[in-house]
Parts: sequence; C-alpha cells; structure tokens
Amino acid sequence: MKNKRGFASDNNSGVHPDIFSAMAAVNEGHTIGYGDDVYTASAMKKMKEIFGEESDIYFVFIGTAANVLGLAAVTQSYNSVITAKTSHIHEDECGAPEKFTGCKLHALKTPDGKLSPEIVKQELYGFGFEHHSQPGVISITQATEMGTVYTVDEIRALSDLARNNNMYLHMDGARIANAAASLGLSFEKFTRDAGVDVLSFGGTKNGMMYGEAVIFFNKKLSENFKYIRKQGMQLASKMRFISAQFEEYLSNDLWLKNALHSNKMATLLAGKIKDISGVQITQKVEANGVFAIIPRKIIPILQKEYFFYVWNEDRSEVRWMCSFDTSEEEVNDFAVLLKKLAG
Amino acid sequence: MKNKRGFASDNNSGVHPDIFSAMAAVNEGHTIGYGDDVYTASAMKKMKEIFGEESDIYFVFIGTAANVLGLAAVTQSYNSVITAKTSHIHEDECGAPEKFTGCKLHALKTPDGKLSPEIVKQELYGFGFEHHSQPGVISITQATEMGTVYTVDEIRALSDLARNNNMYLHMDGARIANAAASLGLSFEKFTRDAGVDVLSFGGTKNGMMYGEAVIFFNKKLSENFKYIRKQGMQLASKMRFISAQFEEYLSNDLWLKNALHSNKMATLLAGKIKDISGVQITQKVEANGVFAIIPRKIIPILQKEYFFYVWNEDRSEVRWMCSFDTSEEEVNDFAVLLKKLAG
Amino acid sequence: MKNKRGFASDNNSGVHPDIFSAMAAVNEGHTIGYGDDVYTASAMKKMKEIFGEESDIYFVFIGTAANVLGLAAVTQSYNSVITAKTSHIHEDECGAPEKFTGCKLHALKTPDGKLSPEIVKQELYGFGFEHHSQPGVISITQATEMGTVYTVDEIRALSDLARNNNMYLHMDGARIANAAASLGLSFEKFTRDAGVDVLSFGGTKNGMMYGEAVIFFNKKLSENFKYIRKQGMQLASKMRFISAQFEEYLSNDLWLKNALHSNKMATLLAGKIKDISGVQITQKVEANGVFAIIPRKIIPILQKEYFFYVWNEDRSEVRWMCSFDTSEEEVNDFAVLLKKLAG
Amino acid sequence: MKNKRGFASDNNSGVHPDIFSAMAAVNEGHTIGYGDDVYTASAMKKMKEIFGEESDIYFVFIGTAANVLGLAAVTQSYNSVITAKTSHIHEDECGAPEKFTGCKLHALKTPDGKLSPEIVKQELYGFGFEHHSQPGVISITQATEMGTVYTVDEIRALSDLARNNNMYLHMDGARIANAAASLGLSFEKFTRDAGVDVLSFGGTKNGMMYGEAVIFFNKKLSENFKYIRKQGMQLASKMRFISAQFEEYLSNDLWLKNALHSNKMATLLAGKIKDISGVQITQKVEANGVFAIIPRKIIPILQKEYFFYVWNEDRSEVRWMCSFDTSEEEVNDFAVLLKKLAG
Repeated sequence: MKNKRGFASDNNSGVHPDIFSAMAAVNEGHTIGYGDDVYTASAMKKMKEIFGEESDIYFVFIGTAANVLGLAAVTQSYNSVITAKTSHIHEDECGAPEKFTGCKLHALKTPDGKLSPEIVKQELYGFGFEHHSQPGVISITQATEMGTVYTVDEIRALSDLARNNNMYLHMDGARIANAAASLGLSFEKFTRDAGVDVLSFGGTKNGMMYGEAVIFFNKKLSENFKYIRKQGMQLASKMRFISAQFEEYLSNDLWLKNALHSNKMATLLAGKIKDISGVQITQKVEANGVFAIIPRKIIPILQKEYFFYVWNEDRSEVRWMCSFDTSEEEVNDFAVLLKKLAG
Repeated sequence: MKNKRGFASDNNSGVHPDIFSAMAAVNEGHTIGYGDDVYTASAMKKMKEIFGEESDIYFVFIGTAANVLGLAAVTQSYNSVITAKTSHIHEDECGAPEKFTGCKLHALKTPDGKLSPEIVKQELYGFGFEHHSQPGVISITQATEMGTVYTVDEIRALSDLARNNNMYLHMDGARIANAAASLGLSFEKFTRDAGVDVLSFGGTKNGMMYGEAVIFFNKKLSENFKYIRKQGMQLASKMRFISAQFEEYLSNDLWLKNALHSNKMATLLAGKIKDISGVQITQKVEANGVFAIIPRKIIPILQKEYFFYVWNEDRSEVRWMCSFDTSEEEVNDFAVLLKKLAG
Repeated sequence: MKNKRGFASDNNSGVHPDIFSAMAAVNEGHTIGYGDDVYTASAMKKMKEIFGEESDIYFVFIGTAANVLGLAAVTQSYNSVITAKTSHIHEDECGAPEKFTGCKLHALKTPDGKLSPEIVKQELYGFGFEHHSQPGVISITQATEMGTVYTVDEIRALSDLARNNNMYLHMDGARIANAAASLGLSFEKFTRDAGVDVLSFGGTKNGMMYGEAVIFFNKKLSENFKYIRKQGMQLASKMRFISAQFEEYLSNDLWLKNALHSNKMATLLAGKIKDISGVQITQKVEANGVFAIIPRKIIPILQKEYFFYVWNEDRSEVRWMCSFDTSEEEVNDFAVLLKKLAG
Repeated sequence: MKNKRGFASDNNSGVHPDIFSAMAAVNEGHTIGYGDDVYTASAMKKMKEIFGEESDIYFVFIGTAANVLGLAAVTQSYNSVITAKTSHIHEDECGAPEKFTGCKLHALKTPDGKLSPEIVKQELYGFGFEHHSQPGVISITQATEMGTVYTVDEIRALSDLARNNNMYLHMDGARIANAAASLGLSFEKFTRDAGVDVLSFGGTKNGMMYGEAVIFFNKKLSENFKYIRKQGMQLASKMRFISAQFEEYLSNDLWLKNALHSNKMATLLAGKIKDISGVQITQKVEANGVFAIIPRKIIPILQKEYFFYVWNEDRSEVRWMCSFDTSEEEVNDFAVLLKKLAG
C-alpha cells in the first residue's frame, strides 16, 4: 500500500528515518524503566545544553498532556488561564485543561492567533476578589494555530505583563521548531530568554513518532512535577524510546532542517496560489501552514485528491499544512489542481 | 554499550524485533491522524476476531491510562472501586484513579493478590445510602501483581457478584498474555466469557514499545469513550505506530510465544532456587514473576549483578520478573550466584 | 447597633420576619436529619404543587452550589456549558463549575445579560468531534445579572435550540422571584413549561436566610442527584430549617410580595434619577436592579452614605440593587443625594 | 406536632434557644455579605482569643465541607490522607474528599476509632517514589466516631509522626466540644498546642443550626483558602447568621454546658444498661455516644419507640447518641424499655 501525502496536518506524516534508526539503536538489552537509563540521561544533557542547566525537563507522550500538565504545575484550581480563542488548549483538547487542573480558561478573540497585552488585559481584573477565578497564566502557542509566529519582543511584552501580575507565561510549542526556523533563532532565545516559564516542546509534528517535553525554566515550579506527570498518566515505562527520538531530533540540526523545509513548502504553496482568482490567503505565512478562503464548491473535489481540513465552514476557509516530507512536486501539483478547479 | 538483562521488571526489556519491523513497515507516506487510518482499522479487525464483533476497542499509551480511563467510563464520581491492596491501580498509579474519576478506592488485603467474593463482600454495603460512596466496580489484575493467575471460575464468581450488585468487573490485563499462557486459554475465555465488562489489554510488558488497549464488551459502556480518551490525554496522533504493534503482536502467536517463554523462565528460576537454604518462595509461580524471601544482607550484593526490586522491606521479600528475552543461561547464572551468596 | 440599608446587594438584607418565625416554629424536639422529616416533606409538597408532581427537588445551601450541582447532574466532564459573559457561573463562582464538573464554559458577550439563539450558535459546532468539548448545556440567568428578564418566548427559543442539539437548558434562578413578579407569571410558566430542564431556585436574595433548591423537570436527570449533592458537600443535617424557610416563603405569596416590592423600588429609583444630568441608565429596569453610568468622582462620596458596587470601572458604571426591605424613603433620599452630587 | 427525642444522632436535635435568639438579634438592617460585617469580625475575635492571634479562621456550612476544604488546603492531588476506617471522611462523605482534592485515602482499621503511630506507619512508605501517592496528611476525629477521645499525648504522638515525615495533622472536630468536656481541657490545649495543623471546628451537633469553622494554626497554610472556600461552594452570603451562632456558642460556656450534658447523659445511659443480660457495651464511653451489642430481634421493637441506627449489622451492634437536650427522664425510660425487651 502506498500512502499519498496530503496537506491535512503535519502529524499525518510518518517518522523521519534518522529518528527511526535512532530508536532501533537503543533497542537492545534491559534498561531501568521510567527514565532512569543512560539514553534518557543523554537526551536530558543535550536539552540542557540548549535550555540551560537551570531548566528542568520531563518527557510525556503528547502535546495535549504537555500543555495540561505544564499548566497544572503552575496553577491551583482557583486560577484562570488566559489564552487565544484559537488555541489548542481551548479548541482541541476536549476540556482536558479544565478537567485536570480545575482552572477556568478565558479564550479571547484574536485576529491572527496571537495574544497581545491589550487583548490579555481584558481579563486582568478581580485579583484578590474571592468570587473571581484568579488570573494565573497567560498561554500562547508558538508557532500559532494560525501559522503565525510571535516575535521575541511580542513574547517579552506578554511575559512582562504576566510577571507584573504575578502570573506565569506558558508556551505551547507543538510547532516550536517551525517558529525557531522562521525567526532564525535558537529555541532558548524566544523561550527562556524572553520570559517563558513553562514550555511544551514538541517534535511529533516535525518528524518524531511520539513524545513531547515539558520544560520549566525555574526549578521551583517543577519540584513536584514528577508526581503530576505520573498522576497525569504520562510516565512512559520504556522511556528510552522517547529519549532516543529527542536525542536524534536535536542532533545534527535535524529539527531545523525539517522545520526549514516544511516552512519553505508552505511559503512556496502560498506563492503559487496567492494570485489565483477566488483564492484569498487569510493569514501571514510565517511557519508551515497556509490559511485560505477558496470557492466552497471546489473543496470536496480538492479533498478527494489531497485530504485537508476546512477551518471555518462559514467563511469557506481551509487550512493546508506542510510537513518535513512534503515535496516541491506535491506543492506544484496541488497548486495546479487548485488553479484548475478555482478557475 | 551493552545493556545487561536483569530481573527487575518485564518492562525493562526492549521491543521484540518483529514488532519493531512492523512499525518500520508502516512508516511511509501520510495517513490521517488519531486512528482513522487503514493500519488501525486492520488492527481493530484482528482484535475483534478475538474479542468479538460486539467489543469496542480503544488504544491508549499506557497501562495506567487504560485502567483509569476504563474505570472512568463505567463510574460516576460518587462510586467506589473495590480492589486488592497490592493492585497497580492502588499502589502504583500515584492516585491517578482518584484524581481522574473522583471515585474512592477500597484496597483490600489478600494473601496472593487475588480478590475473592468473600474479600469483596467486606465493602458491599451502603447501597442507596447517600452518605456512602456507592460500590460501582470490582477491579482485578490478571495475572496479578503477585505473579498469580485467576482461574475462569474465580473470575466468574466475581463477575456474578458484581452483576448481582449492579456493579461492573474491570480487569487490569497488563500481563494478560502471561495469564493466558498460564491458563492455556485464549483471551476471550477468561475475559468476555467470564463476565469481564472492561479490560485493559497490555502488551508493553511482553515485547511491545508502548500502547495499550481498553476493551469494552458492551458498547453501551463505551458510547462516549472517545471523549474520555481525548480529555484523558491519551489520543495518539500518529496512531498507526500503536496499531502496527498490536497487529504484529496478535499475529503468528507472537504474544503467546513471548508469554510462554517468560513464564517458563520464571518456573525455571523457581525450580532452581526453591531448595536453597535461606530462600523461601512466597507465592505460587503461575506467570512470569517469582517472589521470595532471601537473606537481607545478600540483597545489595545480588542487586549489583542483576538489578531487581525489594518488594517488602520488613520481610526481606524480593520480586524477580522474567521477560520475553530472558535467557536460560541468565536464569542459571542468577540461580548459581544466589546459591553461592545465600549458602 | 443599627445597620443602615444600602443598595449594594439584595443579599445584604436580613431575613424576612415571617421566615424567621417559621424557623423558630420548627425548633423543637428531634427530627431525623438530612431531610427525612415532616417539615421537608411538607415543603416538597408545596413546591410540587407549583412545579408539578414530575419535578424532583433538592435543597442545598447556596446558589453557587445549586448551579454547579445542577450542571453536574446533566453533564459529563467532556461537555461544555454555554453561558453569558456576565453570568454568575462564569464571573462569580471562582471556577466552581469547572472544578466540580470538569466542563468547559463558553462565556459569550451579550448586550444585556441575555443569551439568544443567535449568540449561542457561535459555539454550536464540533458535535461528535472528539477533540472538541461537546456542547451540553445552555445556561441562562433569570432575572439576569444585568437586571433584565427573559420573556417566555425567549426562553422557549433557547430550550428549542438546546433540545434540537441534544443539549439541556439550565436556569440560574437566584432572582427568579423578581423575574416572576416582573413577568406577572407563576414560576412554572417560564421554567418547566418553557422547556427548562434544571433550575436553581433561589430565595436568599428575597428574604430567606440560606437555602436554595435544585429542581429537575425530568426525573431521569436526577436519579443519582442525591449522591451528587452529598459528594458536593451540600447535604444539610438539620434540613428542617431550610425546609421551614421554603414552606413559609411559598405561602401567602410572601415571595411575590417581597419581589414586587423590590422591583417597584428599583423602578422608582430609576424614575427618579433618569433625568439627572450626568446620569445614564444603561440597562432596562425589569427586576430589582438599576445599572447606571455616573460621574466618576462622585462615586466614593455616594458610597460613604450608601454602600454599592462599581460594575464597570472603565465606564464608571455602577449597580444599585433593591431589596424586599428597601423603603421608598431610602430611595428618595438616595435619589436626592445623587442629584445633588451629580448636579 | 410534638417531635419526640431519640438517640439516633446528635444532629437530630434542634437549635439551642440562646443560639436562636442570637441569630434573631442580628437580623436587622443591611450588612455587607460574605463575611465583611461586624458580627463576623466579632465572632472571629472571640475565636482568636481561644485559638491564638496566629490562627486563621473561615466559616463554612457543614462538617463535610470543613473537612474536605481543610484537607484541600494542605494537599496536592498526588498526596494521600491516612485516616481511620471508621472516620467520617472515609465512610460518610460519599467520596467528597477524593472528588474535591484528588487525593487517595488510606482507611486503616482501628479497635476504637483512634489512629496510633503504629497503625499509621503501615502506610508511611514510598516517599519520593513517583508511582506512589505521597503521604501528606494524617486525619483524626476528636471525639471519634466510636465515642472515644484522644488524649493530648496521643495527639502529640501523631503530630510528631506527621511532622517528622513532612506531613500535616488534620482534626475533624465535629464533636470537639464533647472531647473538650471529656478531657476537661480548653480547645487549644489538644489542638494547636498538641500540633494539629488544621481543624474542623463543629457546633451543629452541639446546639447550632448550621455552620462550621476551618481553623488553621499556621497562616502559611491558608493564604489562599478564601479561594478554595469559594470554589468549594461554601462561602455564605448572609454570613452574619453563622457568625452570630459562633459568637453565642462560645460565650458563657454554652458549648461546654451543652457538651458536658450530652456526655453525662451517655455515661448515665451506659451505667444503666451495662449489666443488662444480652447487652454488651463495645466501646469506652468517653463522649456522648454509646455503642452496644444487643439482641438482634429487639432492635426493630426498640426503634419503634426511639429511633437510632444499627452500626454493625453482622454483630448486631447499635449506636446511641445523646444530645444537648436529652433528658435524664428519657435516658431512664429508654433503659427501662431496653431492659424489659432484652430480659
């Protein structure tokens, strides 16, 4: 069977061959379970070279869990979390944050998936008032669910706002590699150095099989996180197979090559379709996603050839995601077909 | 680096080569995420050939999650779950069942890790009394955490008791393959046919990398389980890599070969040490674990060569687990060393 | 000490003398605790005369609990609750709904505290999509937190919308007496008969001391509610003192007299101030509250004489609530002072 | 209607007349809600005279809530609470502690409802081990549910054990007045001074209508408790009516008079029946309850005259509770009837 590649999601891709090989390489003999093994120690070492010795890092299975458990570590149930209406934690986690943390989410409308201090301030009130959920965290996604990317200054403005209100800044980095590639910056520059307190560091959308890291930049925040992870049902027994993935992912710039490629494919796609009549690109293409309004009637026809998701039914807006393994040829073919159908 | 094999846990082993190859085989092209792919469909088909068309099956990442989410599906927060004091859900999940379901656990003492109707009945009271957590589930482990195995009749006695009290029977099958191999029965005979309502079907301790199945034998119980799984942070995006493991695991009797072997190694070990002076085997060896009281002073010396866990500090009781890849030679060498040290 | 009456909240008032006497009247001898007593039976009978034999009624301590436990009865944790941004369950319960039910709240902006089908429909999507919290309940407040009142038709439009989407309609009736008095309708006409599924029936803001009722109009929804109430920490031991209050409250039209009076006082107040220069009434006065923008600088001076709350700091909007015991003289004096200060 | 007094529970009694009068006395005019009123300030002052300026005190509605919220304040969800099998938090709160705190309860068998260091130590293991719920609190009841009373030394032994393991000591004081009367000590002597960290201070079983206090002896533990109380649905709007009760209860030794009386009645009852053939008193009578095994067949006959509860069906063991308003004559009549029936 030959699986065709489409533009549905960057998690529809498989696993990068180098990562697969790295997993195979650790598959021999016995190692202690749950992370007390040499492969995990080595992966941690590599991550700390990036994020600093003061960082505290925990592997979990998936991004939803990384987000929810990271939030749980820095909240009490009477806190609220301020986030964008389009954020994964609000739209796509089936209420996992509320269920697990007990916190209220304030999901605010944004033009482009990005919070700003001005937007956040709508919910910055009621501090100390016992009837009101206490604002505890600002949560942003980098790159956003809309394919846009926060600048360092934008992040710092939010972390300053958080700190001034005794709140924390959480970053959902499911596509953090795409953001780093887009910004041309190493990870720590727009996370730790920009005032992020807790980070979900993802790789599954960029060539890994499974596994995500929760990274704390202040060990005070994570001193009991191992219990939160275990109670949160996210402690892997055969941890070495997550660790081997991260080790490889962060070696030889694999993460960067993959992300640069998928970003480039999205830019290529946008370039090829932007002038097609009836097609309107709706968001800046800063990472690996393209959002566009296209003629409603061609959507099902196009989907038959290349699966993808309708983002906004009312507006006939669709989302196309590029992956580390998307080829130029596929982008070309897709653009040609779109032009033919829309024309 | 060469990892030595020990007797610490069956999850200290790696992944069976056939399973690894099966994972590699599905690693090409794009497939829709979250389980809507041909590999998952195929694995489900194979599982339903075993458990019946009426079964409803969901993959999750790990056993703790399979247990907790399975329990969540059949309880409301005012229910209680009756289990053995030694059960994984009570001892080794850091309170995940209580946190996620809100239920109370009644953890009862047993001689051998097995509940019986007589033991369970201690907590069968207060039905309809609003002050009292309502007994809702009996949860058993097969094979137990003590290396023992329930017979079909023993399971049926508990499922009858459950049904007569409008309760459900849950089975933690983290080592269900070892139990099946021990009983010489196919899975459905001592699960579905014996009245089990919801089953955690594990493979990680028997040669898989990660992934566990929650199996319902009555679709009424699982009609909303997809939301519970997602909210429970256990929905894998690249599901095909779990599905491929299960497909292979259940093909060509791989599960059975692995389990028969690890059981055999445990029996071999028990046979070789049972007459050593100062060594007292404390539980029947019916699956892949051996429990024994050994001289306290030799424990650290023995652990230096082969890592394993002390089960009961006070009694100087240790646990040795055999894996699908444990060799006869290792068992021999270990027994010889033990004899030398204990003698 | 003489406590001055103000316009801060209808719960700043004391207890109506008739209700206090009724409590005294049941204070003799022993009765079985937790509601199995003659006074509770009698109060239930009276409530069922209003709400119908098919209704199922439970007393709790306070409105927050009535709301939260009522919502818990008709949701699973993967559901969402759609409510107005100004609702008590969103703004003033410190996240109790999220914490206790695990559900997500969608808090939508409204001009006047009232949801409409059009507003609700913004969140009616993602049904059956496992990543998305499943819309389960529409929750409205009657009278609203903004002093407005839903008509029967408006409620019916929302209950139709709910039913068509397999959702429930919840009503927070903390000020339901004011709404009934305003509409000139008995309670059942705009609750049960208009399609409300579960109702928080309050009395504390209208002359009771404590105690609220959760009323279900379909016993299927409440068959396990007694456990939810107990686990929700809301089962009173000396229940007779809540029951006696409800009995009296619903006798001799006491609830109606009180509500008509407080509504009348609010109307009187609005009439007296509406033409004062610098004062702008911002909401229709349909119940017992008046919302107005007044000159910012006079607020602290006015508050020194009569305590009340600023509703919206930015807009210099304040809220004045009238109670069952507010006197015409007080309204007059207050209006005179306001005019003097604003002039 | 004349309500007969029985021996079912000390919460079947009504409200002491002095307390009722005190409630009436504060029922005039308006006061700010939720506790920011002079009556609450005064009650707090009185309580701090007893428990010390360093104590931090919060009123809630009922004992279950006092227990659960107090525990919530000193735990994270990965903690466990060690308590007696007979404790109210384990047996009679329908799982509220698990639901609200997420914690595991370890309910241990005791001969007399009292924990001892030896009993508690059974569960003192697994510290720092992430798979294991971390022991966080020892919870005791004073007087116990079995009518027994901890000595100061016994409490101190438990608080020392707690502190040595970085745990907290919680006391459920639903019948703390009976314990104080029994010990001949003022409250602080066997709470604060004996190392209790958080106390549920009850009055409802000793003449109050409703209302319980959560008392912290270290303000570090309660710095966010106001949010926990609100989110826990236990913040009363018309707080003055709880405060007035506590004020009166703690004035003129009312609490002590009531408790001495009910204790005395229990002792009287025990004395009168201890030699009846077929009647066997099973617990020391140290507070206001008497536990006895009586002939099974006379229970329903006796219950027809005086309602009470069977404590242990299997053993034919019953519980008789005396109240502040139990009369000597009632005790006599009851003993006479028992003797007649048992003889």
